[in-house]
Amino acid sequence: MRPEIVLFGDSITEQSFRSGGWGSSLADTYSRKADVLVRGYSGYNTRWALFLLHHIFPLDNKKPPAVTTIFFGANDAALLGRTSERQHIPVEEYKDNLRKIVQHLKECSPTMLVVLITPPPIDEAGRKEYAHSIYGEKAMKEPERTNEVAGVYARQCVELAKDLGIPAIDLWSKMQETEGWQKKFLSDGLHLTPEGNAVVHQEVVRVLKEAWFSPEQMPYDFPHHSVIDGKHPEKAFQLQCSAEF
Amino acid sequence: MRPEIVLFGDSITEQSFRSGGWGSSLADTYSRKADVLVRGYSGYNTRWALFLLHHIFPLDNKKPPAVTTIFFGANDAALLGRTSERQHIPVEEYKDNLRKIVQHLKECSPTMLVVLITPPPIDEAGRKEYAHSIYGEKAMKEPERTNEVAGVYARQCVELAKDLGIPAIDLWSKMQETEGWQKKFLSDGLHLTPEGNAVVHQEVVRVLKEAWFSPEQMPYDFPHHSVIDGKHPEKAFQLQCSAEF
Repeated sequence: MRPEIVLFGDSITEQSFRSGGWGSSLADTYSRKADVLVRGYSGYNTRWALFLLHHIFPLDNKKPPAVTTIFFGANDAALLGRTSERQHIPVEEYKDNLRKIVQHLKECSPTMLVVLITPPPIDEAGRKEYAHSIYGEKAMKEPERTNEVAGVYARQCVELAKDLGIPAIDLWSKMQETEGWQKKFLSDGLHLTPEGNAVVHQEVVRVLKEAWFSPEQMPYDFPHHSVIDGKHPEKAFQLQCSAEF
Repeated sequence: MRPEIVLFGDSITEQSFRSGGWGSSLADTYSRKADVLVRGYSGYNTRWALFLLHHIFPLDNKKPPAVTTIFFGANDAALLGRTSERQHIPVEEYKDNLRKIVQHLKECSPTMLVVLITPPPIDEAGRKEYAHSIYGEKAMKEPERTNEVAGVYARQCVELAKDLGIPAIDLWSKMQETEGWQKKFLSDGLHLTPEGNAVVHQEVVRVLKEAWFSPEQMPYDFPHHSVIDGKHPEKAFQLQCSAEF
């Protein structure tokens, strides 16, 4: 009945329904207008995401999502030879995997609005503090992710969106426009604070509105209560609903 | 693929994805295990809800929800002769309408877990302050809802659940067990604060667990990233996923 917005990504998507999360804010923004479904997979990179593609987005889905956000890269950009190297994906393959994901979604539905989101910036000091809080003295001295490398992945993501003619949110750049982004937007150097979540929410809503998927212009699924006549409620429902009960 | 939890109700359900809301907390609790869909209709009573029933829950749905919460009564219990009388529903009809809703859902799927939630208690002083803040001196002096009357509706809701052998959450009683519930749980004498939302979340999770719909015992939809072999990711996906890309 309602159009669906699917959020496909890694832990930053999986955690998007925590208190102040960008996913729940999006569900609230599109309240009574669209459903928001989370398909977030903590720790996943784009190579692993490909295994899920046909399961989450089957080609024979008669009612494919109207909108899908693709938000990977934070794990792909983990460095080789460091603690998270298992998740590392070379940047050319990252771009290629993203392209496969977009192509698959467009095959599911040519009219689907597909939005690419770059990985956020990395606060290396924050990652170090986080690793120390977990592993103490055993924590690796070298960072497993750097802001510079995350930026390389972010640029490939933005470039791909241009190539494919689809919208992208350059979160890596956007967040760094704000003084003190390191602690303001990131809780552990990588994941989002409520303020960081607010940036993602705001950017996603902006891009969706630009693509004519505007909550203000979408109809309510059923009559607003103020237009229902207390004595003759059936009038308000006649156009939209039958009264089979 | 994942089971669905549908939240059917009035504004307290519609607002459940605001920051700290019970709906988004529920989505987070069942992360990667179940989808949570909001079907909340601000201002609606059970009589108006009946018009939506066949649309939201069509009988021929091949994949009906696994769980539905029904959370009405706050508007039904609005008093006659006061500012919200348009929403008033006699208590016998309220009970009868709830019964029709439950019967319809069980017709959709006999195994659906249907949970009734009573209206919350009313803080009459809070409602008065709220009305004054909106209408100033023009605000009606008499409350449009009383805690006593909300309690009458709550008891009928609990009694119906007993009759039908389905679980109920007696929110009206539960909240009043806590000292200072009036301001702690209610923001305007009727709607929920983040603490009030936490009570609803906790109660819904408790009831779902008692009915064996426990997030801890439900499988992840896809492999946890820690079991994926960096060199041979396909192994972790072989059982569950094909690699058609």
